[in-house]
Amino acid sequence: MPTRLVIDTDTAADDCFALLAGALHPAADLIAVTLVAGNVGFARQVENALITLDAAGRPEVPVHAGAERPLLREWVSAENVHGDGRGGHAFAVPERAVEAEHAVDALVRIAREHPGEVDVVAIGPLTNIALAARRDPAFPRNVRSLYVMGGSNNGRGNITAAAEYNFYVDPEAARIVFSAGFDTTVVTWNLTLDQALFDTARLAAISALDTPLSRFFDLVNAPTLAFDRSVGIDGSTHPDSLTVALLLEPGLVRRSRRYFVDVETQGELTRGYAVFDWGVFGKEPNATVVEEIDAAGFHRFMLDLLARRP
Amino acid sequence: MPTRLVIDTDTAADDCFALLAGALHPAADLIAVTLVAGNVGFARQVENALITLDAAGRPEVPVHAGAERPLLREWVSAENVHGDGRGGHAFAVPERAVEAEHAVDALVRIAREHPGEVDVVAIGPLTNIALAARRDPAFPRNVRSLYVMGGSNNGRGNITAAAEYNFYVDPEAARIVFSAGFDTTVVTWNLTLDQALFDTARLAAISALDTPLSRFFDLVNAPTLAFDRSVGIDGSTHPDSLTVALLLEPGLVRRSRRYFVDVETQGELTRGYAVFDWGVFGKEPNATVVEEIDAAGFHRFMLDLLARRP
Amino acid sequence: MPTRLVIDTDTAADDCFALLAGALHPAADLIAVTLVAGNVGFARQVENALITLDAAGRPEVPVHAGAERPLLREWVSAENVHGDGRGGHAFAVPERAVEAEHAVDALVRIAREHPGEVDVVAIGPLTNIALAARRDPAFPRNVRSLYVMGGSNNGRGNITAAAEYNFYVDPEAARIVFSAGFDTTVVTWNLTLDQALFDTARLAAISALDTPLSRFFDLVNAPTLAFDRSVGIDGSTHPDSLTVALLLEPGLVRRSRRYFVDVETQGELTRGYAVFDWGVFGKEPNATVVEEIDAAGFHRFMLDLLARRP
Amino acid sequence: MPTRLVIDTDTAADDCFALLAGALHPAADLIAVTLVAGNVGFARQVENALITLDAAGRPEVPVHAGAERPLLREWVSAENVHGDGRGGHAFAVPERAVEAEHAVDALVRIAREHPGEVDVVAIGPLTNIALAARRDPAFPRNVRSLYVMGGSNNGRGNITAAAEYNFYVDPEAARIVFSAGFDTTVVTWNLTLDQALFDTARLAAISALDTPLSRFFDLVNAPTLAFDRSVGIDGSTHPDSLTVALLLEPGLVRRSRRYFVDVETQGELTRGYAVFDWGVFGKEPNATVVEEIDAAGFHRFMLDLLARRP
Ligand SMILES: [Ca+2]
Ligand SMILES: [Ca+2]
Ligand SMILES: [Ca+2]
Ligand SMILES: [Ca+2]
Repeated sequence: MPTRLVIDTDTAADDCFALLAGALHPAADLIAVTLVAGNVGFARQVENALITLDAAGRPEVPVHAGAERPLLREWVSAENVHGDGRGGHAFAVPERAVEAEHAVDALVRIAREHPGEVDVVAIGPLTNIALAARRDPAFPRNVRSLYVMGGSNNGRGNITAAAEYNFYVDPEAARIVFSAGFDTTVVTWNLTLDQALFDTARLAAISALDTPLSRFFDLVNAPTLAFDRSVGIDGSTHPDSLTVALLLEPGLVRRSRRYFVDVETQGELTRGYAVFDWGVFGKEPNATVVEEIDAAGFHRFMLDLLARRP
Repeated sequence: MPTRLVIDTDTAADDCFALLAGALHPAADLIAVTLVAGNVGFARQVENALITLDAAGRPEVPVHAGAERPLLREWVSAENVHGDGRGGHAFAVPERAVEAEHAVDALVRIAREHPGEVDVVAIGPLTNIALAARRDPAFPRNVRSLYVMGGSNNGRGNITAAAEYNFYVDPEAARIVFSAGFDTTVVTWNLTLDQALFDTARLAAISALDTPLSRFFDLVNAPTLAFDRSVGIDGSTHPDSLTVALLLEPGLVRRSRRYFVDVETQGELTRGYAVFDWGVFGKEPNATVVEEIDAAGFHRFMLDLLARRP
Repeated sequence: MPTRLVIDTDTAADDCFALLAGALHPAADLIAVTLVAGNVGFARQVENALITLDAAGRPEVPVHAGAERPLLREWVSAENVHGDGRGGHAFAVPERAVEAEHAVDALVRIAREHPGEVDVVAIGPLTNIALAARRDPAFPRNVRSLYVMGGSNNGRGNITAAAEYNFYVDPEAARIVFSAGFDTTVVTWNLTLDQALFDTARLAAISALDTPLSRFFDLVNAPTLAFDRSVGIDGSTHPDSLTVALLLEPGLVRRSRRYFVDVETQGELTRGYAVFDWGVFGKEPNATVVEEIDAAGFHRFMLDLLARRP
Repeated sequence: MPTRLVIDTDTAADDCFALLAGALHPAADLIAVTLVAGNVGFARQVENALITLDAAGRPEVPVHAGAERPLLREWVSAENVHGDGRGGHAFAVPERAVEAEHAVDALVRIAREHPGEVDVVAIGPLTNIALAARRDPAFPRNVRSLYVMGGSNNGRGNITAAAEYNFYVDPEAARIVFSAGFDTTVVTWNLTLDQALFDTARLAAISALDTPLSRFFDLVNAPTLAFDRSVGIDGSTHPDSLTVALLLEPGLVRRSRRYFVDVETQGELTRGYAVFDWGVFGKEPNATVVEEIDAAGFHRFMLDLLARRP
């Protein structure tokens, strides 16, 4: 039976491919998409989500707008990386409106309606998830599992040397989430960078599909690829779609390990730095961190996905 | 026409008298009481609120339970000051349940239903108010005025030398509230201490009323009075009832001034310290801070209140 | 017998009058002046000290240059308050050079040579004093007493709402000093402001002396007076000369109290804020804080000083 | 011509082998050893340095005691890792006293005497180096090069997940040093861990030398080896001797890169975390960071060293 899935997203670039996976993969029953402030302007993110669900032939999936800014900090965009998040392409923007229900209310309600049966994939800053946990202390228990894209496991950040973007944007929210009692799995930036890069050959294989979705991929992926190359990364990075993939096809995880994860909210140089303590400093683990994946399998996952004709 | 009033409270000791004022003063139409984590255990606070509304003969006022902990920090109680918040007395606890609606939802809804017509008095940590502001960006505008008890205007704290309790408990929430765009008036701890102390004579005048409410006051006030005396304060302190009084009888304010107020969330010694910048350091004011009150008038306000026989 | 005195100073404006007092008061044997980065450019401070010692007829007092910047932070000047620290007047700058010995070495050496017999008055940022304490762990014990001008005793700051200038400029140094084991007396900014202001009448009495030193005072004091008036202070402020005065004439202290003093080095809004804990939060006192002075006596002290004809 | 070398050390375990290298390697002219608070009790560190110089047959090398504690923070030992720093062995402790001159004074003097000709290797917390830089602003220029063992280049710490011990113990000192203008080369903990581990085979090769120095190595190295194995490291770690080796035999460096390095002094979870910014976040590089070494060459360096018979 497919998993009941909610994707919480700051939809731009790879978030779109994560939504495609949630919308189309046979193991997923995507029951809602919730939007959170992150990559690009909020209205643009909402449009990107609607465009993507249309591209997936799933316009009926409810989209809920959530927090339009981080809990405490000023919003920091990633528009220098992602542009408008849709490759600058003039996609037709669906005219339908988002749900009246706020994303946080939707998260709380859905988890209450199906306690222990809903998986949440959080691929943006954790503002909505933190607000839901504070709004309903039972939320972390009601959710079956939480997959988080964020942080760097004792490795490089991407928005600063110390921090990965999602945790940097709302470090207080990230800190709340890691102490809230979720069954949490973390997919980190450096895992993405080291093991899940789509290099020229892999990107060519995607283009060669020549399907509507592969063409969608090429359009939307172009700015991220250009940015990655400009900073010395040889290929495009897919942290968000990887996170959905590892939930839907757990066999893609080759090795994971329990860690104590916590997020710096006080530093001058280390805003949003995530501590990944591998168990020697006396803290109780609170998250499963993916350390090794089947990289070829992930690429195959993407090819299968983009080969579909919705 | 009486003001539509919501009191957000961590009900214990002086919060009770603030509720009495909201419930009984002719200038107030108390449409809801919302509870927030603070002074004493959460369930006890709820009971204290229900007991107080019963004492006021207003059992129909809806009570909404809200955040049971601060946004980011561990809860810190003030039970060393307030005991159980009801003087250790065996009051009959009303059997009625609180509303199903969460305090944050109630705050957001009420402000939407009556935009520009509701005053909120926040006399506990600002967790609920911050969550409401993040849940609905229009909430600060929908509220007519926000009266906050908290901070110390370039003066002594009470839970540390640097910080007043309400801001100390949830500094992130306090910081959010002061930047959220409310029309805010602040009643500080040092104003309370310097100008609104009830000394022996004033307390005797209250006891001499010998009404049900004055007896309620004496019982509930006893632990705070004992604590204040133990730390060298000659009388009992009434920050929360003062805050309600200044809203309901604005003539009690003798002098106030615009300040830029912000709250420290990063310090090692200064957690919850509130900066009150009087206008020489280039920041735009965001709050009206009461600097001088009619102390005799406040005592008279309390006598009038406690003389009532609900 | 006069006290052996070292004055550690960022010489500008009131520091000059503090030096005059050290150089000329019969209770003082000024054995060295040490310079520390603070109010105005370092070379200018050195010149101001030399000019002042010349004005006092004490050119033989050794002047040692010390730390030209704070321990950790970038230097922040107070030139907006003090101008060049000498009223913009074209004083003849003495040609003699400062001592070859560094201020920190001089402090350590002098305290070793006369253990328990030297008083140090620190009227600038505490960089030199902190370096001396770290350079020689016996230094705090070798010094008889340390008089510090700095902080605000649960009151307003002057460079920010939260912080007084000397502690703000080098908060790490201030923190080191308060934990180093000195016999410390603190003269705070708000004591100065509340009780030691020279108003128009007091300033007129000084001018009326019409001595070389009173004319020196008027020239050097002018910018500070103008600044104070521009921020709503009715008179000129004399924290540094007050500090020397309270050491040399202890009878000017009407009331003092033991406090635990510590300095914030971690805050975002509270850099250099000093906690003055009056004894209810469980910390062992580490400093004597002057709370009330004989204001008329301090003015008389200044008149006596400026009436001298060196 | 051999390099004039000063080693600043918290002598315990691998510091001893670094001293052996400085004392015996033909490319080194060890002109002073300076001690700084770190690994084990200060008096014990001094003894360890004297014992090691005796073992090297170099009792004439001057040893200067320096800072007995960090600038601002309480001292944190590494005795859980290193024991007494000499393998618990009853070495004869030399009776000679250390120099009268303080380590900081010695550093400043030596660099002044030989401007541009002295290399300093700092293999403990950076307290002495920071004090020297603040004591004499010309010190960073007078030193030819500064080799620092510390930090982790976007990798794991050792005293916390985030921080390496030397920077953790005195983060303020480390921050001062990286901004002081030295020509700095950094040898990091993760470089040591990933590339310079002495595994069972390498340790056996050392034992097989069966010289006085190899026996000294085996005795002194035992506790570190035992600790490393207890935390899952397969071999013993040699960060300090590696640092000296890379200075004396630059050919052992296979790859290095310019970084902007700075140290967190404000964090709650990240005390002493070092940012290593590889050049994409707009900061000017201030250090050369070794990224790859000739691991076999380093082992050969150690074998050559321990084969010597002083
Ligand atoms: Ca995302
Ligand atoms: Ca309250
Ligand atoms: Ca001064
Ligand atoms: Ca070492």
